[in-house]
Amino acid sequence: MIKMAVLGFGTVGSGVVELIDINQEVIRRAVPEGIYVKHILDLREFPDSPYNDRVTHDFEDILNDPEIRIICETMGGKEPAYTFTKKALERGISVCTSNKELVAAFGPELLKTAADNHCSYLFEASVGGGIPIIRPLNECLKQEEITSIYGILNGTTNYIMTRMEEAGLSFEEALKEAQDSGYAERNPEADVEGHDACRKIAILSSLACGKTVRYEDIPCEGISGITKEDFGYARKMGMAIKLLGVMKREKSGLCVRTAPFMLKADHPLYSVRDVFNAVFVHGNMVDDLMFYGRGAGKFPTASAVVSDIMQLAATLGTNLPCVWSAETVSLSDSGQERYRYFVRADKGLQEAAKKNFGQIEYVHSDMSAEDEIAFITPRLTEDEWAKSSTAFGDVISKIRLLSD
Amino acid sequence: MIKMAVLGFGTVGSGVVELIDINQEVIRRAVPEGIYVKHILDLREFPDSPYNDRVTHDFEDILNDPEIRIICETMGGKEPAYTFTKKALERGISVCTSNKELVAAFGPELLKTAADNHCSYLFEASVGGGIPIIRPLNECLKQEEITSIYGILNGTTNYIMTRMEEAGLSFEEALKEAQDSGYAERNPEADVEGHDACRKIAILSSLACGKTVRYEDIPCEGISGITKEDFGYARKMGMAIKLLGVMKREKSGLCVRTAPFMLKADHPLYSVRDVFNAVFVHGNMVDDLMFYGRGAGKFPTASAVVSDIMQLAATLGTNLPCVWSAETVSLSDSGQERYRYFVRADKGLQEAAKKNFGQIEYVHSDMSAEDEIAFITPRLTEDEWAKSSTAFGDVISKIRLLSD
Repeated sequence: MIKMAVLGFGTVGSGVVELIDINQEVIRRAVPEGIYVKHILDLREFPDSPYNDRVTHDFEDILNDPEIRIICETMGGKEPAYTFTKKALERGISVCTSNKELVAAFGPELLKTAADNHCSYLFEASVGGGIPIIRPLNECLKQEEITSIYGILNGTTNYIMTRMEEAGLSFEEALKEAQDSGYAERNPEADVEGHDACRKIAILSSLACGKTVRYEDIPCEGISGITKEDFGYARKMGMAIKLLGVMKREKSGLCVRTAPFMLKADHPLYSVRDVFNAVFVHGNMVDDLMFYGRGAGKFPTASAVVSDIMQLAATLGTNLPCVWSAETVSLSDSGQERYRYFVRADKGLQEAAKKNFGQIEYVHSDMSAEDEIAFITPRLTEDEWAKSSTAFGDVISKIRLLSD
Repeated sequence: MIKMAVLGFGTVGSGVVELIDINQEVIRRAVPEGIYVKHILDLREFPDSPYNDRVTHDFEDILNDPEIRIICETMGGKEPAYTFTKKALERGISVCTSNKELVAAFGPELLKTAADNHCSYLFEASVGGGIPIIRPLNECLKQEEITSIYGILNGTTNYIMTRMEEAGLSFEEALKEAQDSGYAERNPEADVEGHDACRKIAILSSLACGKTVRYEDIPCEGISGITKEDFGYARKMGMAIKLLGVMKREKSGLCVRTAPFMLKADHPLYSVRDVFNAVFVHGNMVDDLMFYGRGAGKFPTASAVVSDIMQLAATLGTNLPCVWSAETVSLSDSGQERYRYFVRADKGLQEAAKKNFGQIEYVHSDMSAEDEIAFITPRLTEDEWAKSSTAFGDVISKIRLLSD
């Protein structure tokens, strides 16, 4: 048996331990000696769990056990996950993780530590839950110049937006429902303000470039300002509103952004509902690809972690290379990115709209209030938008359109 | 430089050679020594091609060149592709291919020859064109019990059906258009009768089982019997008609089938249009996944081949394992598979319909002829369908519904 340890016995960590038990026969088809979780690190005790006798509170117990060949880190957060991961890799113990925060912040450093110590650092579960996306990007698309990535990368916000769209709920109502269903945390900020999606597009963009796209550099907007009236207009136009992580190679350089976008019904991302995620990738040779699946949840995420564990088990003592250097990519001036905007404003601004935005297209909705106008602007750079909208006056809503 | 040879300088073969040139910088990120196509095997000469000086007509030139480490077989058909592949693998030269016919017929044997000779046999491009599906199934989902696969696996038929649906063309008109656009061959039988999709679902099912699903054992229906009137009814029901390769694990065993199916608008396969392909996979832990992209075309397919070449270049002298034994899977009795059927028949059979099929649901369409009825049957086994429909009389159309 290949012996391993799991750090953090929360939703994903317990899913990993259970999945390895439930699917042990399937796993033995590829790893005939089998995989055994010998230690589970957690501060808590789990008296009702059949795995409680494997729980330790001291990471040194794991680090100093020479039988441990693989560590799976499902703690989340930067510390102590970073310290534990670093120490393990320095000892030549391979690590896999679902921790996007750690990967986004320290990915290249931990990959280098792994390479220096003839072991590996894998992070399939850090983006897209159960969807195989990291390995396809990293291994199946190395021959491609990735020219754009559009990702629905956060299941919580996609669930909220699906409920707003389909049941006509307000943001607050849909958020409460998501919290009650366990899809959103009590403190939902990381999800609804786009920070989680932002870390994930940072990881995907870094892999696409082979260098580091810092998530701190990425303009990030969440969905808390989106209203059910916005969905009314979107429906009227046959469009959906989705929170997207976007990477585009433009003449001016690499553009990366997290924001809500309106997209048309014929776009493959349009029908990605509920807690599902999808990553739409364009390569210069392969053209469009999409990877779709459950972006969160105990077993889907655990499945991605276990796929890493199995790859580590098959390659013990070697380093699985990943082209992601610490060199930072300078993002292009986001003020030069061009979009069409959906805009809602007070009816009194009708004349000002034409004057400031040029050829606008009016949009009507059954839900639109008497005293407002809604329209689509021509393609504008972000800077032109800023200038025009300042002269124009207060807008009620503004959402970018995903253009071709 | 890692030296390689390409067998067959047709659409895909020339795409491989060109892609390696066009994206050489990208390729060097992962394979720093670079990849060079030293020989191209083809019976023809290509006086207008810059690669003509690399063309040879004799496979022995390639086999006896000790510099050649990788061979890419893009000839198609069983012979001489089988003989060339076998000889190369026996010499320890790794081979990758886009040849689904060869993989479906000789996959396990060639994989074993590769393993015996410390080299590899890869076939990412044999299913789904540019979509990474073989490697994800083979490497990212080894921890999963794959319980079902539904695939739109043939770009030609999907293009034809999209045109029938969207432009109201007849099958013959859409086929002619596809031929004129280069999407269908002059002899379209392998595509429109479902044989190509059948080979591909055989490959995917074999990988999902780790054993051999023989394509000769798979019930196979094509699309040549589908009419524009069928699409009229489908549209009325908010459904699409797609040619699917289907694998399902049922209590009775493994069911595999190729046939046209009607599916609802909320199914992720519904919006897969034109020459795009998609593979919808359900695993017992990861739940639903979908992989989407261009199922054919020079550069998308070449991209998948080159991804194999790069993996081979990174693992020279070793065998990349693939769990696919020669042991044959006995498919479950297809007569016991249960479906609901969409049926069109002469109006005179209205009473007989109720009598023979029980609780039927009538369907109306703007395109329906005065003298016909259309309805959906309850869930029936194939055997029950056969019995009831024999008693019922001649049907104009019969299409299975993809049920949950």
